[in-house]
Amino acid sequence: MNAYRTYLDGNQDRYLDELLDFLRIPSISALPERAEDVARAGQWVAQRLSSAGAENVEVLPTGGHPVVYGDWLHAEGKPTILVYGHFDVQPVDPVELWTHPPFEPTVVDGRVYARGASDDKGNMLAPILAVEALLRSGGAAPVNLKFCFEGQEEIGSPQIPEFMPAHVERFASDLAVSADGGQFSETEPLLLMSLRGICGVQIDVHGASTDLHSGLHGGRIQNPIHALTQILGSLRRADGTVAVEGFYDDVAALTEVERAAIARVPFDRDEYLCEVGLDEEFGEPGYTNRERGWVRPTLEMNGIWGGFQEDGIKTVLPNAAHAKITCRLVADQDPERIIGLLEEHVAQHAPPGVRVEVNPLSIRGRPYSIAADHWGNRAAAAVLTEFYGREPYQTRSGGSIPITGVFLEQLGIDTIGFGFGIEDENYHAPDEFFRLASFRKSQRAYVRLLEELGK
Amino acid sequence: MNAYRTYLDGNQDRYLDELLDFLRIPSISALPERAEDVARAGQWVAQRLSSAGAENVEVLPTGGHPVVYGDWLHAEGKPTILVYGHFDVQPVDPVELWTHPPFEPTVVDGRVYARGASDDKGNMLAPILAVEALLRSGGAAPVNLKFCFEGQEEIGSPQIPEFMPAHVERFASDLAVSADGGQFSETEPLLLMSLRGICGVQIDVHGASTDLHSGLHGGRIQNPIHALTQILGSLRRADGTVAVEGFYDDVAALTEVERAAIARVPFDRDEYLCEVGLDEEFGEPGYTNRERGWVRPTLEMNGIWGGFQEDGIKTVLPNAAHAKITCRLVADQDPERIIGLLEEHVAQHAPPGVRVEVNPLSIRGRPYSIAADHWGNRAAAAVLTEFYGREPYQTRSGGSIPITGVFLEQLGIDTIGFGFGIEDENYHAPDEFFRLASFRKSQRAYVRLLEELGK
Repeated sequence: MNAYRTYLDGNQDRYLDELLDFLRIPSISALPERAEDVARAGQWVAQRLSSAGAENVEVLPTGGHPVVYGDWLHAEGKPTILVYGHFDVQPVDPVELWTHPPFEPTVVDGRVYARGASDDKGNMLAPILAVEALLRSGGAAPVNLKFCFEGQEEIGSPQIPEFMPAHVERFASDLAVSADGGQFSETEPLLLMSLRGICGVQIDVHGASTDLHSGLHGGRIQNPIHALTQILGSLRRADGTVAVEGFYDDVAALTEVERAAIARVPFDRDEYLCEVGLDEEFGEPGYTNRERGWVRPTLEMNGIWGGFQEDGIKTVLPNAAHAKITCRLVADQDPERIIGLLEEHVAQHAPPGVRVEVNPLSIRGRPYSIAADHWGNRAAAAVLTEFYGREPYQTRSGGSIPITGVFLEQLGIDTIGFGFGIEDENYHAPDEFFRLASFRKSQRAYVRLLEELGK
Repeated sequence: MNAYRTYLDGNQDRYLDELLDFLRIPSISALPERAEDVARAGQWVAQRLSSAGAENVEVLPTGGHPVVYGDWLHAEGKPTILVYGHFDVQPVDPVELWTHPPFEPTVVDGRVYARGASDDKGNMLAPILAVEALLRSGGAAPVNLKFCFEGQEEIGSPQIPEFMPAHVERFASDLAVSADGGQFSETEPLLLMSLRGICGVQIDVHGASTDLHSGLHGGRIQNPIHALTQILGSLRRADGTVAVEGFYDDVAALTEVERAAIARVPFDRDEYLCEVGLDEEFGEPGYTNRERGWVRPTLEMNGIWGGFQEDGIKTVLPNAAHAKITCRLVADQDPERIIGLLEEHVAQHAPPGVRVEVNPLSIRGRPYSIAADHWGNRAAAAVLTEFYGREPYQTRSGGSIPITGVFLEQLGIDTIGFGFGIEDENYHAPDEFFRLASFRKSQRAYVRLLEELGK
């Protein structure tokens, strides 16, 4: 057995304890009151990187949540690999739907349940542990390594585009490997060909100066909730297509080759509906469910609120109503242009009698794609085939990792996905979990990936 | 000076202290956790009625918030007047918009600020104090009196229709006088000709079994917020008219005489817009602002909520969205029929891919009207003319007092309005207040009204 395997096997109990420690930090980047916890998670990562043997470890300020850097640059003549992951997590509401408290990680039947278990703390820890095993057991890694762990992925990395230009030399590498990703199932691997981009707005509708009595004022002035529902209703057609003028203008048409590659990836419609607890799917006519989720743009309402929301009755005519909306984008849509189109659309559809504001959300990411035969993907495919006994599917993701666009534009490097989450692990939802088998497998797979990339 | 006036003048300091005590009880009928406070307010009223000289005082259970009864039946040969008011109040949110805490009554510049100051604690206390002055100063009232004070007006008196049939004999009277109402201004009185009815529903849209990642699932399944906005958008047209089929079927056409009487009541559009803080009014085409608010039915959204509602960003595809809606009804609309129409409309407009429920709210009231020359109104007009030096306007209210329909149907009696609130007093809104001048005037006016009704 290789020395690194002996090392990994001998340290699994400690590694699990460390993962649980990491998961106890409520590093929710979306909530301003959790900023200190995000910073604490960054310190935790920096310390862990150092103890794994990384050098020049630093917590870098960004103006928002920090970035953690570290390197190991002693593999002369070998490529430099930039390992990426994020230590921030999604909010936890509705918290009452969690079986266990989201920041009290609980191991049940070979799964660890906690917010961030799969997305992305469990996954981002794996390359650190792999590198520790290589350095502690053999004294060297097969490639040069740089690490970039961020604390703002879940809010769309708002400061990263301005942060990176000042650190281009520090992060200069030949390829990024993202530990924020997954495999197709417990027995089937994947290569990730594309990610959707993202942007969003909050719509704020303001009416009277205070809430009013709906009997005394109802029928006489505009109702902000009604105005908001009219605006929101105008954004999408009944069939699910986006009705914002110009929204689809820059969407690259799907080729038959692309559609065929997507169709080769297994999809069980009934299993999917069972997983989400619905009787029917819903989406843009003319596309398969996979296409809708992977290569078609969306406009989704993430939240809405206004007026009386408690049990009981309050006959109020509210003075404001609000909604948060995000769009997922595909090549070649541009986040800034889409925000502009949303602003124009809302301005044109705002009903009389209220004041309507459109405030762009800080989240912003370009769509990203990479070729299946890229040298990084060839290395990943070799390792995955070795571990799973079959070739990976060529899949895509409907999610967004905005930093991939930043790596491409500012460092000139591509990003391959190499993570071990599985889609049923409730990312962004109650009862998020990570399979401990994936946690263990990912550590060995990362060693092998670095070896392949060093060939 | 009459003995009752001397008595009233000598007790104003105590009466104000008592009003402040009454206002300190947070008797919010809409909030289940305030049920004990509503009961406490009922006990307070019962005690105050007794100390005023009322007999047979009882707090009557209804299955919900209680009703307080009392009587004084020693005016042989005179009519029996049923004095009505309510001791429950509206919720206080958004509580951050209040200048003073809503249940810490504060007197500033001749006004008492508190939730319920005008609607209806200040107003309902007046007839009790008037009767005390009559009984304590002269030993007798000019009519027989019964009192009916309820604790569920602000939630639409849900138990009253079932409560009243068992108490028809107890409450049997010749006329009801409602202390839940107001005057046109500080210097202009009014007679109330009609009230709108009310009914409502909560719409609950259910999607996936949990909140989902909007990147992984967006575009593939229906979004409950989107479905809800489609439903809500279908309920009203862009011009503000209600689009629910059959909604206007039973609305009695306005006669030219009625429109002329409404037009005679002064209305300053600019002053109204300034009061509510808006640049423009909005409502059903073909009707004046007064008509829209008084004699046309409405459908208003009182509250909406779903998904992520905090600061920041959460890219969630929520699994549910909710809205509360109430309709104000005019003759001859029937609350039950309107609820049925709403249910049918929503069933027909529910988008695919979600489960939609329509749950009727417990609030239910028929529209009510009374003739200007009714004997009760003639007595009220005489007293008001005496106090204000001018005849009252014949006005209407867009609000609802469901118990008036119950008095008519089950006791066979009409209800006249005799209250002293003024429309700028922020009923149902932050910074509700009552003018202390109105509080004092109302006590004397009630004495005079009872004298007139006894003639």
